[in-house]
Amino acid sequence: MVEIRKMLIEMKNISELMLDLAYSSVLYNLQDVAEEVVYLEERIDKLNAEVQIKAVEMAINDKNAAKAVAMIRLAYYIENIADAAVMVAKTVLDGGSVHPVLRKSFEESEVTIVMQRVSPNSILAGKTLGEIKLASETGMWVIAVRRGDRWIFGPTEHTKIMPGDVLIARGHPEGVEHFINICEGREREL
Amino acid sequence: MVEIRKMLIEMKNISELMLDLAYSSVLYNLQDVAEEVVYLEERIDKLNAEVQIKAVEMAINDKNAAKAVAMIRLAYYIENIADAAVMVAKTVLDGGSVHPVLRKSFEESEVTIVMQRVSPNSILAGKTLGEIKLASETGMWVIAVRRGDRWIFGPTEHTKIMPGDVLIARGHPEGVEHFINICEGREREL
Repeated sequence: MVEIRKMLIEMKNISELMLDLAYSSVLYNLQDVAEEVVYLEERIDKLNAEVQIKAVEMAINDKNAAKAVAMIRLAYYIENIADAAVMVAKTVLDGGSVHPVLRKSFEESEVTIVMQRVSPNSILAGKTLGEIKLASETGMWVIAVRRGDRWIFGPTEHTKIMPGDVLIARGHPEGVEHFINICEGREREL
Repeated sequence: MVEIRKMLIEMKNISELMLDLAYSSVLYNLQDVAEEVVYLEERIDKLNAEVQIKAVEMAINDKNAAKAVAMIRLAYYIENIADAAVMVAKTVLDGGSVHPVLRKSFEESEVTIVMQRVSPNSILAGKTLGEIKLASETGMWVIAVRRGDRWIFGPTEHTKIMPGDVLIARGHPEGVEHFINICEGREREL
């Protein structure tokens, strides 16, 4: 039961990351980010299948059908969200370039996604995301970090930010300017 | 073309609000919030149909098939996300109560949703969301306001917060404590 709940939480977290990454991949035409969305979908499928099995096994033991059905349904809803994220990401993977009209639509939407390099002067350089509390101080939430030619997707509070890292963050438009200034080292206080 | 882009942006914004509201309705067993999700879906359906018509009309004029197809597809992806939100909200509307296991799963997920009443002592009381910049100062983004027995869904920067209002906000877990203290008037600085 605890195990199934953990799987559902992981599925929900992954599906949310997938949507943000899918929009990012379109906005900045990032093939590798779009590929990550497809990769995460495999994880979602696997978790969905496991939730179904574990939930039915649980029902056989505790005779509580409603609980098992609630869990199976939730996993199914989340899987649908993940599928939609994959559809968005596939516009980047389907060869050809993403039509500018899509990019424009995403740029002007309420949930903002920004990509910004961390300057060596930035107060973020050398700190973990947990230390700097960027999310609660700027409203911008880091969803991916590019370091050289590799990516860290869904960084945790333990992820250390290095000078030169490129951050992709999502958040409310009102936090964008502060976030960019912090990354560029123009503002030295959070 | 500008008109179609505006419709796509509105669709994307609504679909994101729908997901947040759907999760909120499950977390706090809010029938009227779940009903709003279903209502917003009708708006999404209408916009989707309009995007299809306008995009094809545009293609007939400018002979640019790729652009029209990109727009129609994006609208379709967003509609899928909206449909998933409705499925989540329907667990609240389908009579019976939401199974506690769903609530538990949402409570522990990375995207946090909090419901909190605004005390008369709170610095938020009497200010618009634009004035207080709650999102960029706490990382918590107000998605709904309950005032007496009515709701304001998807409030804007012009929405004024009144003492006694109940706010539903979504954001990163690290911002929750500050947000609650601000609402309760225990902290007087953002």
